[in-house]
This record gives sequence, structure tokens and C-alpha cells, in this order.
Amino acid sequence: MVVKPKRKPVGQVPGTAIYTGEKKMDEVLITLHEYGENDYKSRHLNSDEEFTSSLESHTKSWIQVRGLHDVDKLKPVWHHFGMHPLIQEDIVNTSQRPKIEPYDDMVFIVMRVIMPQDPPAETEEKKKKKDKKHRPLHSEQISIILTPNSVISFQESETTLLEPVVKRLMSAGTRLRKNKPDYLSYAIVDTVVDYYFQALDVLNEEIEQLEEKIIKDADERDLQHIHALRRDLIYFRKSIWSLRDGLNSLIRDESKIIHKDTKVFFRDVYDHVVQVIDTIENQRELVFSLYDIYMSGLSIKMNEVMKVLTIIATIFIPLTFIVGIYGMNFDPESSPWNMPELNMYYGYPASLLFMLLVSLGMLYFFRRRGWI
Amino acid sequence: MVVKPKRKPVGQVPGTAIYTGEKKMDEVLITLHEYGENDYKSRHLNSDEEFTSSLESHTKSWIQVRGLHDVDKLKPVWHHFGMHPLIQEDIVNTSQRPKIEPYDDMVFIVMRVIMPQDPPAETEEKKKKKDKKHRPLHSEQISIILTPNSVISFQESETTLLEPVVKRLMSAGTRLRKNKPDYLSYAIVDTVVDYYFQALDVLNEEIEQLEEKIIKDADERDLQHIHALRRDLIYFRKSIWSLRDGLNSLIRDESKIIHKDTKVFFRDVYDHVVQVIDTIENQRELVFSLYDIYMSGLSIKMNEVMKVLTIIATIFIPLTFIVGIYGMNFDPESSPWNMPELNMYYGYPASLLFMLLVSLGMLYFFRRRGWI
Amino acid sequence: MVVKPKRKPVGQVPGTAIYTGEKKMDEVLITLHEYGENDYKSRHLNSDEEFTSSLESHTKSWIQVRGLHDVDKLKPVWHHFGMHPLIQEDIVNTSQRPKIEPYDDMVFIVMRVIMPQDPPAETEEKKKKKDKKHRPLHSEQISIILTPNSVISFQESETTLLEPVVKRLMSAGTRLRKNKPDYLSYAIVDTVVDYYFQALDVLNEEIEQLEEKIIKDADERDLQHIHALRRDLIYFRKSIWSLRDGLNSLIRDESKIIHKDTKVFFRDVYDHVVQVIDTIENQRELVFSLYDIYMSGLSIKMNEVMKVLTIIATIFIPLTFIVGIYGMNFDPESSPWNMPELNMYYGYPASLLFMLLVSLGMLYFFRRRGWI
Amino acid sequence: MVVKPKRKPVGQVPGTAIYTGEKKMDEVLITLHEYGENDYKSRHLNSDEEFTSSLESHTKSWIQVRGLHDVDKLKPVWHHFGMHPLIQEDIVNTSQRPKIEPYDDMVFIVMRVIMPQDPPAETEEKKKKKDKKHRPLHSEQISIILTPNSVISFQESETTLLEPVVKRLMSAGTRLRKNKPDYLSYAIVDTVVDYYFQALDVLNEEIEQLEEKIIKDADERDLQHIHALRRDLIYFRKSIWSLRDGLNSLIRDESKIIHKDTKVFFRDVYDHVVQVIDTIENQRELVFSLYDIYMSGLSIKMNEVMKVLTIIATIFIPLTFIVGIYGMNFDPESSPWNMPELNMYYGYPASLLFMLLVSLGMLYFFRRRGWI
Amino acid sequence: MVVKPKRKPVGQVPGTAIYTGEKKMDEVLITLHEYGENDYKSRHLNSDEEFTSSLESHTKSWIQVRGLHDVDKLKPVWHHFGMHPLIQEDIVNTSQRPKIEPYDDMVFIVMRVIMPQDPPAETEEKKKKKDKKHRPLHSEQISIILTPNSVISFQESETTLLEPVVKRLMSAGTRLRKNKPDYLSYAIVDTVVDYYFQALDVLNEEIEQLEEKIIKDADERDLQHIHALRRDLIYFRKSIWSLRDGLNSLIRDESKIIHKDTKVFFRDVYDHVVQVIDTIENQRELVFSLYDIYMSGLSIKMNEVMKVLTIIATIFIPLTFIVGIYGMNFDPESSPWNMPELNMYYGYPASLLFMLLVSLGMLYFFRRRGWI
Repeated sequence: MVVKPKRKPVGQVPGTAIYTGEKKMDEVLITLHEYGENDYKSRHLNSDEEFTSSLESHTKSWIQVRGLHDVDKLKPVWHHFGMHPLIQEDIVNTSQRPKIEPYDDMVFIVMRVIMPQDPPAETEEKKKKKDKKHRPLHSEQISIILTPNSVISFQESETTLLEPVVKRLMSAGTRLRKNKPDYLSYAIVDTVVDYYFQALDVLNEEIEQLEEKIIKDADERDLQHIHALRRDLIYFRKSIWSLRDGLNSLIRDESKIIHKDTKVFFRDVYDHVVQVIDTIENQRELVFSLYDIYMSGLSIKMNEVMKVLTIIATIFIPLTFIVGIYGMNFDPESSPWNMPELNMYYGYPASLLFMLLVSLGMLYFFRRRGWI
Repeated sequence: MVVKPKRKPVGQVPGTAIYTGEKKMDEVLITLHEYGENDYKSRHLNSDEEFTSSLESHTKSWIQVRGLHDVDKLKPVWHHFGMHPLIQEDIVNTSQRPKIEPYDDMVFIVMRVIMPQDPPAETEEKKKKKDKKHRPLHSEQISIILTPNSVISFQESETTLLEPVVKRLMSAGTRLRKNKPDYLSYAIVDTVVDYYFQALDVLNEEIEQLEEKIIKDADERDLQHIHALRRDLIYFRKSIWSLRDGLNSLIRDESKIIHKDTKVFFRDVYDHVVQVIDTIENQRELVFSLYDIYMSGLSIKMNEVMKVLTIIATIFIPLTFIVGIYGMNFDPESSPWNMPELNMYYGYPASLLFMLLVSLGMLYFFRRRGWI
Repeated sequence: MVVKPKRKPVGQVPGTAIYTGEKKMDEVLITLHEYGENDYKSRHLNSDEEFTSSLESHTKSWIQVRGLHDVDKLKPVWHHFGMHPLIQEDIVNTSQRPKIEPYDDMVFIVMRVIMPQDPPAETEEKKKKKDKKHRPLHSEQISIILTPNSVISFQESETTLLEPVVKRLMSAGTRLRKNKPDYLSYAIVDTVVDYYFQALDVLNEEIEQLEEKIIKDADERDLQHIHALRRDLIYFRKSIWSLRDGLNSLIRDESKIIHKDTKVFFRDVYDHVVQVIDTIENQRELVFSLYDIYMSGLSIKMNEVMKVLTIIATIFIPLTFIVGIYGMNFDPESSPWNMPELNMYYGYPASLLFMLLVSLGMLYFFRRRGWI
Repeated sequence: MVVKPKRKPVGQVPGTAIYTGEKKMDEVLITLHEYGENDYKSRHLNSDEEFTSSLESHTKSWIQVRGLHDVDKLKPVWHHFGMHPLIQEDIVNTSQRPKIEPYDDMVFIVMRVIMPQDPPAETEEKKKKKDKKHRPLHSEQISIILTPNSVISFQESETTLLEPVVKRLMSAGTRLRKNKPDYLSYAIVDTVVDYYFQALDVLNEEIEQLEEKIIKDADERDLQHIHALRRDLIYFRKSIWSLRDGLNSLIRDESKIIHKDTKVFFRDVYDHVVQVIDTIENQRELVFSLYDIYMSGLSIKMNEVMKVLTIIATIFIPLTFIVGIYGMNFDPESSPWNMPELNMYYGYPASLLFMLLVSLGMLYFFRRRGWI
Repeated sequence: MVVKPKRKPVGQVPGTAIYTGEKKMDEVLITLHEYGENDYKSRHLNSDEEFTSSLESHTKSWIQVRGLHDVDKLKPVWHHFGMHPLIQEDIVNTSQRPKIEPYDDMVFIVMRVIMPQDPPAETEEKKKKKDKKHRPLHSEQISIILTPNSVISFQESETTLLEPVVKRLMSAGTRLRKNKPDYLSYAIVDTVVDYYFQALDVLNEEIEQLEEKIIKDADERDLQHIHALRRDLIYFRKSIWSLRDGLNSLIRDESKIIHKDTKVFFRDVYDHVVQVIDTIENQRELVFSLYDIYMSGLSIKMNEVMKVLTIIATIFIPLTFIVGIYGMNFDPESSPWNMPELNMYYGYPASLLFMLLVSLGMLYFFRRRGWI
């Protein structure tokens, strides 16, 4: 999941907009949603002129921009709304920390969408090994600019992640249609935060499966799985940590653009973000705990191996010594003291019996120790 | 104990009330308690009309709602008190963080009840293994809305957890009867916090039993027990952590609904919550410490095994070598240097004696090292 | 040292005074100390009437109550001073966190006394094992109510812990006699904090002895000792942690009961408490470090055992192989190639010499590795 | 990377300027950049007089000082701008924490440049071992003094690190040329922070390579590599930690020297610094995680070794016992019970077959355990 | 380095001055430095009268008191300046936390001097083992009282630690001579902080040497060395931690005694103290890291031992089995199936060759595993 960002060259003029992500779609797609309490229109804007002309109308509007790789296509939007060069830079620099910055006449919101990646079509073979798979998360930057009459959103790819908002916008009589664009910006943020919960559920399930697997039978790949989970959780936390403070100051600050009624809703989003962060922290602790179980599993396995070795060796080493004795070549004929057992009538079976007794004694000793 | 919540679909209209818990009882049960300093009446409200009419009276009242799975039954209550859509959503979304939110004319409190689960009827067999059992905790969401004249409480199930409050309400002359409903809301919160202490006691006892067990004889299941305890403590802490801040701001804020005298009592509850959080933190440390004891127990066991192997092997390996020597087939007749011992009169007993001395020497060496 | 508290039943009326400790003495003992700059009187109050009448006088007074198990005996005191029901409850609920609560006309202070327990009379046998003993700490709750003219203190048992204060009160001309009762309350708090330092010294000495022991020769009981120390330090910290904030707000708040000059002294106590907490934290770190030493001691022991096994085995295994060769029964007579050594004149001594050289080579190899 | 600083002698007069770094270049190089919206001039100042005279002009100027070892050369600059003795001391004491201190008529900024060191020319041999190399970071102190009309920067060495800023200054019409010197100071700080990202990328790549290496095959040098990374990250964090607070207070404080419009840019730098610190923390966690993988790799290797030993030993020890039995010298002629097998027709092949079966049984046992 | 303090008896009258350190010099030494911008006089005060009379003059003065064991000698100083009993107590109670307390007409500063101890004269023998030595730090309490016209300093011993300040005081025209006594108090504090850096350098060097040693060849004493370093760092941190807050509030508070210009210098000291604390934290992390290296060194050693055992055993055990086979006594004459090899012409050399091949195969297997 970890995105390795392209960096701008050192000393680049600040405010220079250079897209640092990967090109994820062919064309930049600009969609204009115009809506009022009773009407809704939507169309794709293909030329710049079309763009400028269409915004003359004074209804509420949402300009949804998908694709950031062609900066030239974005410039008319930026200029029309007079966005600060640093905003422009942040929109296309896709390794931003999330932040919410109030400007004089607009609010700038950058968030990172974290959502479960659609799993690739599974072959039969893969399904069997399913429990070993670490499922990666999809990560994408979304920027939202809120002005008194418009919301402008910038996404990296053509994903349908804002589809639920579009659908609600289409239904007449909803709060979304009635309220000002600040409520629309809330709806977008809320939708993104909802994806966090989906991602958490995926991670949670993965942790539980891994836990079960490790308790049953830990192997080396589990450690790599643990490590991968740790990385994802670190990345996840980093991706939303600063959103909390951003939302908090948004709720408290005196901002004319966001209406008091909408702030109640933003407070709800804030609560959700705090809950996500809490859950991430708890999952991190659980993953640490998994590591402990893994390590102690290794120790237990080692103990098992040692026990088997010890049992086998300690039973047979004395026996081998005994048979060694009767393999000595002392000459019974030179002296009556020299190994008279060799010529006894029951010498052989007696020695076998003796060895049997020795090994039974050993086994009894091990059982009493709880080793077998 | 960890509840895996159902999630609302992404992008759901905010304020949509969807019950995310499991259905825990058949019918939604709405009980109306009306009380004054000298009188107390209580009855179940079955139809919506009954509900509306009965609240015309201007006495103090407590509407106790049990069961959240049938949202349609809850709507009349919500509408009568004009609750904000987000409150409605939070009441039925049962994976809320605890919070206390002041609204203009009401206070909204969400808490999580954590209490020891009644142990299942124990068979003879189970009793024997009792010490190995991890006893799960019962977890349930409770929401309390406080208006100037009423308290409305929402519970997930029909549990009798608020029974102690009902009983106190029945006795005339108590502070509960004399004071305003804000004191009733305090009484409910206080009762829930009392359950935390019960849960802590159960956990504490479990930790102590486990500690004793691990010190005596650690085995693999103990690690899973430790892990289960860690999870419960993480979940427990998460479930009450944010309650502290909520109570703190409740005490400090200028709220007209909660009377100054009642705030003294809320300060007491606040102290209890802090004490619970402290104790959870301490128990977490103790559980960490248990893990250390467990791991060092494994090491000690390993050392034991290795010592036995080493003692047996190092005693018999040299002896086996000696008997091997006298098993060599050098021909004594080809030369007087070739194994003359074989033909000596006391050759055999002397060699046995020599081996005895070697093994006694070994044993002495081990004893000096403190191994046996 | 850890006190397992009895709990009040869930849902108990708040402010219900139920003693949750163990009964530690036979009779509740109420002592009245009346003092002024020039005079000091002290007597035991046995009946309730005596109590009421004796407080008519308007001198400065200290009512010292020892024993909390008989709540009926305490009630006259509570009622005379009009204490809030929650204060009453806290006095006898002996598992309180320490706290300092300002009320309108009084200040309520709850502290936990932690002091070294007097060691039991030592038999000869015990003295020898002295270094292995974990010395438990005595723990007891003390409550202090400060009113403009009186100090009322509540202790659980008849211990002489406030004896030093009584003695100072008996000497004329001391600051204690001259100043208002707020200075007396300071004197009591200061005395309790002094006991903390005694307890720290005992723990410190124990840690040092244990450290010495573990470095010399670690065994299993040391781990339990480490665990016991951890528990005590956790409990100790918990017992005074919140006292810091309490004292801090006492110093800063505008309280008419505590005089500005006395606040300088409370600031000094505050410094001492911070110092105690710091020291506890440092001791906790040292105990963690002890665990590390212990675990690495186990590893080193294991290494020792393995080395002995390896040395013995690797010396004798090759030798045993060699003697095995000359124990083979190839018939030298069927062919000149078959074990001609057996019939050589110096065959046997040469083989012994060869084995000697092999083992010397092995020993040289081990020495070069630094194993012996 | 860790720079071991020379210390001033104890008790040195504060404000005494002694260069504590290493001499990194031959000559102190003072370059004067004078610029306005439409013109730009730059020249090296060699004599002190030249310096004083050239600053008479009232254009915007940047005095770039490279080399701090010759304090006498620096003094004219210090005196001309009336810098406080402590500023002088901090400029040449190159083990400063980063800080931003507002003075009445100037702002003093100390930062540490951390950038990837240019790798030495690689021989063929080195390239092969490339994955094992820890690449050190270059570390250097830079001080910036901002006055209303000038920026004065002090670097330790002749490095070209500010070259990007110089280049932008040369191009007419840029924001840098139009704005006041406070924007120039921002440009310098921004450039330094850009280097942090470069250094992070280098560290990140190193961590990833090391991770791959450790998962594949851990050896002892990897631990030293982990340790080196830890040290670098500790040093890195220390080097920029306090910059965050410095920038934060710079943004908030009422400073006349830094214009409101420039503060927006400083806020952007602040965000970058926070992002760098976050990333460092995350990398530290990853390195911790690497250590865990490394240790568990050791355990797994040990298990491997033990398994091989156990398998070989437990297969052959019983077999050796069996062959030992038939090497005993009981005399078959003294009794029909004494080892009649020796004279049986298929005695030898039957015994071999029996041993084969025993070893196959063992192998089956090991396979069932999952050892082979 | 850890100083075990003597404690005052419990319940001692607060403000009772009892020296709790060890007596470190014979006589209490009181030196009076009187100075103005143009003159400087210094003399030892032997009798109390001399002391009182000499302070009549209204120049700036520094009374330097060395030796705290004879409280009677200190009393005239205390009384002359009207010091609060708690100040008196803190001066001689040498286990104080550092603190800076403003009083109405004076500022009271307690610090702990931590400096490298002069190493004892080294014998030849010691020099060789030098790398194993833990060099202890010297620790001493210093108290400074600043009044409008005087500085009074109290040291435990006769050490020359303030000599640098005395020397600077002797030179005319210095800032020290020109400024008020608040600058002198700064000079003393700054000197003490300079010693911290010296101590840090000593610790740093020790850590580096130990690191090198552990990486090369870890043994048991290194663990004790690590433990000693941890203790020292814990103690060091504790000794200066609270100084930071003290200095911080000194800078911010409105204090008439410390002039605004001097506060700039105190801000510099504050920066140094923060830097010291940062460095201690980093060193603590490095020492933790050393422990990890140490433990993994133990594991690696163990692996080494096991490998040798395994290689030797797995090579010879099969060989011993083979020679055992040909040591069996099956009678070749009873059947052509019974060990016909024994009578073959090349039987013996063939068997030796076979064994050689087996061992070469084993060695190849080990090499492929990377064990040899």
C-alpha cells in the first residue's frame, strides 16, 4: 500500500504545480454538477471556454475533477476560482499530509482515501491459500475546495468513490439538495471517512485470520505478514492522523463559509475520525501481541524438537553403552572374572531384559516430568 | 467480548438510523416511569397513540426503551422530543465511542456497559478445568437523553441492568424522587460505572489465577489466555476512554439542564471513571509482566531439557568410548603390545571399576556446577 | 501490598457510607486535641453527647478518628460538621484514589499512606534467606477534612503514624501551635509524604540486593521477586499519582481556608510528591533493566550447558568412530587389504596415540574459539 | 553521520564566538547578492572596507557567508548588523539545536542541513556488495539572519546547497525578486527542508533493501546496519525536532519583519517539517520491526540446525544400538538362548531389513510432524 | 554515581535544616567577593561578626559558601538575608530535585552539578583493561540565592567548579563586572550547565567504546556495563529534568530581580538544558539498542556452538553406525548371506572409501546450507 512519492526537485519555486503521482487514467475528466432544491443538471466539460461560460450561472455547483496528470487542463479551474499557488501545488503533489486550511474566501481540504482494494479474480489455486494473502489497500489523494457557492473536488483516478454522493444529489428533496455547498463538502468528507471503516474491517478480519493461523501453526511467512500489517497500520495512521486536528479547528474556528448547522455534522465526522484512529492504535497493539505469540511459538517448537532429541538420545545412549560392554573382547578363558556372563545359559535374554527395564525406567522418568 | 459491528453502507445519508447490532430480544419494550416527590407510576406503552397522550402530563418522567432492532417503534419517541438526526443515528449505531454532547435543549450521553457475563451452568467436567477458562465480558450500548423534564434511555437488550435504579425510584423520600431528572440521569450513569468495577474485579481475579498458574507450570494455552486478556483490556479501555473527557467537559461547561448540585455527583462519577482507567492501565502492565514470566518459563523449561540431555550424554559418551576400545579386534597374539588387558586376570572388573570412577567424577562435576 | 477492595453493590444509593476495608481494630477511637498558642488538651470521646458538647468551645481543634468499621460511631462527627454525603462515602470507601476537593466551607483530602511494614520477628532460619525475601509495604487510607477552625482526620487502624504530629503539637511555641488549623492539615500531609520516602528507601535497598543477586546467580524465584516489585511499584505510583494534581490545584486555587503563608509549605509538599513519583518511575525502569539482566543470565547459562555438551560430544564422537573401526570383523586372513593394522606389532598403542592426538587437536580448536 | 562536537571550555564568557566544527574549506567566502524587482548583481567581498561600503546602498541584499573557521572575517558582518553576542556564538557553535528566535529588529534562524552524501565513485567490487552499504548523510549547520532589508546566511562549507535559490534569484519577474527579503529567507528555509525529503528517500530505500536482505538471509552485519540506521534516525529527528516549534511560533507571533503573505508560505514549510518528523517516526518503527524480523530469523536458523541434528541423531542412534546388540560376544555355543540369530541363514539380511524399517518409521514420524 | 541520601526522620518540623549529604571537607569556607565595574576584592570570612560587618557596604557582592555539614556556621548567612525556613532546609537537604523558586525579594535556585570525575591515577595494569571500565560521574548539589544586590551560593565541597566564574570576575571591564548580580547568577548557572556537556561527552565516548566492544565480542561484564550506563542516564535525566521547567518559568514570569537583558542569556541556558535532555534521551535509546546487539550476540554465539556440535555429530553418527555393522558377529560360515563382505578381498578399503564418501556428502550438504 505504501506509495513511494516522486519528489519535486530541490529548490523548485514554491507553488509550482507538478503532479507527483502516477498517471492513472487517460483523460482528465471534468464534470459539472449544478443543482438547486428542485433541479439537478450534470455534464462533462471538454473545452476551457465551455468551462468559463457554464459557471456564469449563479446556482450551486460541484465541479468534480478526475485525473491530475495533465496540469494544463486543471489551470482554468484554478484560475477561475483564484486559488493560491500553494493550493495548486498541494492538489497535484499527491504525498500531502491531510490538512484543512481556511483561506479568506475558501476552505481547502486535502484527504487521503484509504479503501479496500478490489481483490483480483481468484483462481482455484489461490483460493486454497487464501489465508496467507495480505490484501493491499487502495490509497488515493482527494482535494476539496469549498467556496460560498461551489465545491471543487480533485481526485487522482476515475474511481467511482464519490458515486454515492452523486446518487444522493440526484434525488430531490434531500438535505443535500436543500442545503448550501458546505453540506456537500461535508457529504464528500463523510463518504471518504466511511471508506476508512471498510478498510478497518478488512484489516481486522486479516488480523483475526492471522491470529488463528499463528496459534495453530506459525511459520516464517507469518512474520512477513505481521510486518506487512504493521507497515499498513503505520501508513494508515499517518494518513489520517492530522485530519483530526484539522477537523477540530474547523469546528471551533469562526468561519463564515461553513454554516453552524453543518458544523454539527462535521463534529460527527470528527468523532468518526477519532474512532478510526483509536481502532488503528488498538489494532497495532494486537499486531504487537501477535508478534509475541509468534516468537513464543518458535520457542515452543524448539522445545518440542529438543525434547524428541533428548528422549531418543537418553533412552538409547545407556543401552548402547550396555551392548558395548558385551562387545568387549576380554578373554573369558584367561580368567573366571572376565565376562563370565557371555557363557551363561540365559546371558543374552537376561541382558535384553535388563535393557528393556532401563528403557522403561527412562520412559517413566520422562512421563513424570510431563515430557511425553 | 469484542463486538464486530455491522457497518452502514458507504455514503449513506448521514442521520439515517440503521441498527447495527444483533437482534437481542423479540419485542421493543417501552416503559414509562412517571414520578414526583410523593408518587410513582410505571407502565408499558404498547401503541404510539398511548405514547403521545401519556406524555401530556407535566410530571417528571423516565422513558426506558429496551430493544433497538425495530427502528419504526423508536421513531415516535425521537419525534416527540425532536431529536437531531445524528442523535437518532448514534442511538442505533451500536459501535459508538462513548460521548456526552450538549445540544440546545437536551444532553445526549452514549455509554458502553461492560459487565461480567453470567457464567454458563457449569458441568462437573468444566469445574475441574476452571482455572483455564477465560470468562468473557458482556458489552452493550446504552444511550441517555436528558431534557429538562424527562430522561429517555435506550438499551440494546432486555437485561435487568437498570433494575437497581428502578428499585430506588420506587422508594419514596429518596433523593432520586426529590430531585430533577438530571439526578436520575446521574443515577443511571453511576450504575453503569459501578458495573465497570465488577468487570475489573473479574479481570483482576482472572489475572491473579493466571499468574499463579504460569509461575507453577506454563503451557501454550496460557499464552492464548494472556492474549485474550490483552484484547479485553484494550477493548475495555477503548470503551470508556472518551467518557472521561465527556464527563470532564460536562462538569465544567455552563449547562442549564444539569443543576450545580448534581454536578458534584457527576464529579464523583468522573473520579470513578478515572480510577477505572487507571486500574485498566495497571492491569495491562501486569499482563505484560505475565508475558515476561511466561517467556522466561519457556526458557527455563528448555534449560531443564538441555541439562538432562547433557548430563546423560556426557556421562555415557566417554564410557561408550572406553567399552569401544576393548571391543577392538587387535590381535593380542601378534604382539605383546596389542591389548594385553584382554587377557589379564582382573581385566574385566578393573575396566568396569574404571568406568564407574569416570561416571562418579562426571556427577561430581555436575553437582559442583549446580546442575543436579 | 495490593489491597483487594470489597465493592459496594451495584446501584447503591450514592453517598451511602459502607466501610469497604477490613476491620483492623476493636473499637472506634475518637480523640479530641484542643490547642491554642499557649495551651494543649487532649482526651478520648466515648459518647456522642460528650462529642457534641466538647466542640462548643471555640478554640482550634483536631478530631482524630481511628477505626472506620463502625459507621454509626462516625455519623455524629459527620453531621456536626455537615459533611456532604459523598465525603462520607469516600471516607469509608477505602479504595479511593487520592484527591483534594475544595467544598464551600471545607477542604477534603484523601491520601493513601504507604510505609514499610514492620518486619516480623525473624527466626534464625529466616535470617539466612533474608536476601530472597520481598518485604511488603503497609497501605492504609487517611482522610483529612479541614474547616476554618478544625481538622478532622480519619484513619483505618490504630497505627501510630500520626504520633510525630501529636508530639509536635504538645510542644509549646512551635509554628504548629501558633498557626491556624490549615497548618496542622499541612503537617499531617507532610508526615504522610515523609513515609513515602521511607518506603522508597526500602524498595531501593531491595532492588539493589536483588540486582546483586541476579548478577551473581539468577534463579527462578528472582523472576517472581521482580514481578512482585513491579506490582508494588505500579500500586505505589497509582496510590500517589493523582495527589500531585490535587496539591497543584490546591496551591493555585483561590481558597479562603488555606492561608497564603501555608501555601508556601504546601508547595514544598508538592515538590516532595513530584520527587517521589520521579523516583518511582526511575525504580520501575531499573526493575525493567533487572528483567533484561535476568533473561540474559538464562541465555548465558544455556550457552554454558550447550558448550559442555558440545565439547564432550565432539571430542568423544570421533574417537568412538575410530575404536569402532578396529572393532569391525573383516577377516584379515581373506586378504592382505583387510585390516592389516590388527596384526601389526604396535597397532594398538599407535591407535591409542592417534586418538590422543585427535582429542588434543579438538581441545586446541575449542581453546582458540574461547570456549574453554 | 553523527558529528562529535568540539566543546567550548567550561565557564567560557557567554557570547564568545569559537568555531566548534571542523575546518571544511580554505577561505571564508563572502558573497553579496543585491537585487530588486528588475536588477540583480552579485560579487565576492574580499576586504572589510569593501564590505562596509557596499552596504550603503539601500536595495534588498543577501550576504551569503560560506566558511566559519575564521572568526575574524565574520566579525565585520556581525558588527555591521549589530548582532547580539549570543547570536554570534550560536552561528559558529555548530552543534546547535535548530531554533528560530525573534529579536527586536531581526529574526535569527538556525537549522541543520541533512542531505544525502554524494556516494564515492564505486569500484566494480563495491557495486557487487552494494546492498550491504550504509550510506552516510551529510550534516551541516546553516544560520540565517533576517533584517528588514537584508538576509545574511552562514554555512560551514562551500557546498552548493543554496545554488537553487541563487538561480531563482537570477531570473527576473519571479516572486523572489518582487517580494521583500522575508520571502528570500523563506526560500532558503524551504530549500533546506526539501533536502530533508531527499535524505528521507535515501533512508527509505536503504530500509527497504535491508528488509529484503534480512527476510532472505539475515547475518550479523545486518544488525550493525540496523543499529546504524537507528542512530541516523535518532540524529535526524533530533536535528529537526525543535524546528517545528520554532516555525509554529514564527507563524503565530506578531512579527513586523515577516509579512502576512509570507507567513502563508512559512505555514507550508511548517507542514513539510511536520511531515518529515512523522516520516522519521514511522521509519523508526519500521527499523524496530526489522530488528524483530532479524531476531526471529536467528531463532528460525537455530531451529533449522537443531532439526537437522535431531533428525540425524534420532535415526541413527537406535540403529547403532541394534548393530551393537549383534556385536555382543555372547557365546551361542554355551546355550541355545545366546544370540541364535547369528547363525540363522537369513540373520544378516533380516537385521538390515529391520533397521531399514526402523529408519523409515522415523522418517514417517518426522514428516508427520512437519519437520522434513 | 547514584547518591543514596540520608533521610530526615519522619514528621520532622518542616524547615528544620539537617545536612543529609556526606561530610566532604573539614571546615565550612565562606568567601566574600565584592565587586563593582572597576574594583574587585575577595576575602575569607572566619567569624560571624566579620560577616555581618562586611556586608554593610553597598557594593555588589557574591558570598560563596563551601561545605554544608556545619549548619551552625550557615545560620548567620541565612538570617542576614532573611531566608525562608524551607529555603534553609532545601540548601542542606542534598537530595533535592532542581528547582527555581521566586520569592518576594529573592530567587532561589537549586541545581545538581554533574561532571566527569577525575579518573584515579592509572596503574599500568588498569590501562590495559581500560575499555572495560565504567567511569563514574561526580554529583553535587549547588544552591544559589539571588537578591537585588547579592548572590549567595552554597556548595557541598571545596571543589573548584566555580573557579572559571571567579577568574572572569577578576578581569576588569567584563560584562560580569558591569552588570547587576542577576548576570552573576546567570554566569554560575551557565557554568554548571557547561559541565553537563562535559559529562555527556564522557558518556558518549563510553557508549561508543562499549558498542565497539560488544560488536566485536560480547561477554557478561558488558551487560553490567550497559546496566550501569542506564542507571547513570536515568539519574542524570532526573537531575536536570525539572530544571527545564524552572528556567522556562523564570524567563516568562514577571520578576523584578532578573533584568530583561539577562533573560536573553537565561533563554540561552534554557536552550542548552533542553539540548542536554535531548541528548540524554538519545543516549538512552542508543543504550537500549546496545542491549539488543548484546542479546543477539548471545544468540549468534549459541548458534555457533550448536552448529559445531551438529556438524561433528551428523558426520560421525552415520559413520559409527556403518562401522557398527561390520562389528556384528553374524557367522559368515552358517550362510552365504551372512556378512559376505567380511571375507571379500577389498572389503575393508571399500568400506573405508564408502565412509569417506558419506562424510564428503555431508560436508557438501553443510556447505550448501552455508554452515561452513
